[in-house]
Amino acid sequence: MLKRFSMSLEDTLLDKFDELIANEGYSNRSEAIRDLIRDIFVQKEWLHGDKETAGVAVIVYDHHRYELARKLVDVQHHDFECIVSSLHAHLDEHNCLEVIVLKGKAKKIQKLADSLISTRGVIHGRFIGTTTGKELL
Amino acid sequence: MLKRFSMSLEDTLLDKFDELIANEGYSNRSEAIRDLIRDIFVQKEWLHGDKETAGVAVIVYDHHRYELARKLVDVQHHDFECIVSSLHAHLDEHNCLEVIVLKGKAKKIQKLADSLISTRGVIHGRFIGTTTGKELL
Amino acid sequence: MLKRFSMSLEDTLLDKFDELIANEGYSNRSEAIRDLIRDIFVQKEWLHGDKETAGVAVIVYDHHRYELARKLVDVQHHDFECIVSSLHAHLDEHNCLEVIVLKGKAKKIQKLADSLISTRGVIHGRFIGTTTGKELL
Amino acid sequence: MLKRFSMSLEDTLLDKFDELIANEGYSNRSEAIRDLIRDIFVQKEWLHGDKETAGVAVIVYDHHRYELARKLVDVQHHDFECIVSSLHAHLDEHNCLEVIVLKGKAKKIQKLADSLISTRGVIHGRFIGTTTGKELL
Repeated sequence: MLKRFSMSLEDTLLDKFDELIANEGYSNRSEAIRDLIRDIFVQKEWLHGDKETAGVAVIVYDHHRYELARKLVDVQHHDFECIVSSLHAHLDEHNCLEVIVLKGKAKKIQKLADSLISTRGVIHGRFIGTTTGKELL
Repeated sequence: MLKRFSMSLEDTLLDKFDELIANEGYSNRSEAIRDLIRDIFVQKEWLHGDKETAGVAVIVYDHHRYELARKLVDVQHHDFECIVSSLHAHLDEHNCLEVIVLKGKAKKIQKLADSLISTRGVIHGRFIGTTTGKELL
Repeated sequence: MLKRFSMSLEDTLLDKFDELIANEGYSNRSEAIRDLIRDIFVQKEWLHGDKETAGVAVIVYDHHRYELARKLVDVQHHDFECIVSSLHAHLDEHNCLEVIVLKGKAKKIQKLADSLISTRGVIHGRFIGTTTGKELL
Repeated sequence: MLKRFSMSLEDTLLDKFDELIANEGYSNRSEAIRDLIRDIFVQKEWLHGDKETAGVAVIVYDHHRYELARKLVDVQHHDFECIVSSLHAHLDEHNCLEVIVLKGKAKKIQKLADSLISTRGVIHGRFIGTTTGKELL
């Protein structure tokens, strides 16, 4: 249930904020401030490591190097319950971008992502912790 | 072409580093240090905003809210040349996770991602800048 | 001048937020949300590099190594108009922590901080961009 | 004791790296890579919260507001063993920048810094975790 409350902000800062969020596409202040607040709690989910949560590993690699493909198969074998799905996109003749959606305890999926990113042949890898959204509604 | 060079590190720190990267799954030091170095350049690609690069928007939302679906269709209409592909995963009865792979000038795809993340009904959104890998080989 | 407006948030999330900010010492919601908003604009001051702003370099080093002391003297000679003041604290028999407060164009003081942090003998260095506060009142 | 080892990097990337670190003021590659490695361990010190470490709180505030001064006195009364020293700099007629050097268990000094930053009248506050350097030599 939505609860209404009021707050105050310096008028010059409020003007700048309104301009900024309009630029980013927000339809109103509430929505923009809600996103700032929710992001704090997502960060907290990831500090404690034992909450059930979701994350995404993004990996750019040269598809002529086969280690990653092999590791992905390995990982799917051993930790298949954490891998929700994955997407493979071609960036150019050499490079691919692979997205792997993970779900499970924060610590476990972070470790899994580390293991994918550290594979030989990966040019750039990054992991984003997000949320299953359960506690943020 | 790989070029070999030597460097020095305090022995106690080197031991800790070897332990850490083994834990993360790296097969050797070179690979781990290469990743640290490449990440600096990926961050730089994103500071200048006009380089051709790649990124991924991750969005968690309640699929009963339709604004995002509509915005995704809009965006694909107007900026289809930036959207490489996307993936949709179900987290539970309510929440979905959508991954959108973007390619183009840093500033443009950042703006596109902002616009997706700011959509009403999005519980959590985050954008990761990665790279097409072209200048990091 | 403070301007009042109202916003809405899911009640369960609002309860969690109130608990969190009480824990961090905030006296009310307005103050906590204002800090979230101001931080966005401080980050923006630093993205554009030519705004007049303030920052702090923090450096931990072994005081038996003299390169940093010499570089600090050099820097104060060449860029004294950027250095507002500095503080030196002893951490133990070997290590010192030096704080240098810088003021000037974002790009220039970032470069100055880089140059201090990269000095031989520095164990750990970090730079925080903050603000002169002028545009955030 | 320094230990020497060799590593390899793509030659084009190595050229870019050499240029970058020369620009930042590093005298050689070893020093720059050492800093990348040490920074990982400083970040780890801060993830576990019970290590003895050091940090710096940076606070910009309007000196016409007295709450912060009062809180600083309070904090120094209750937690004086954590406060190593502090520095006060004038930015303009209104705004001051205060730096507080803290030493102690990571979690405790983070909480102290939160409490200072959340004080009414603080325009911008940030905390940097650094290290006592003990385990990084």
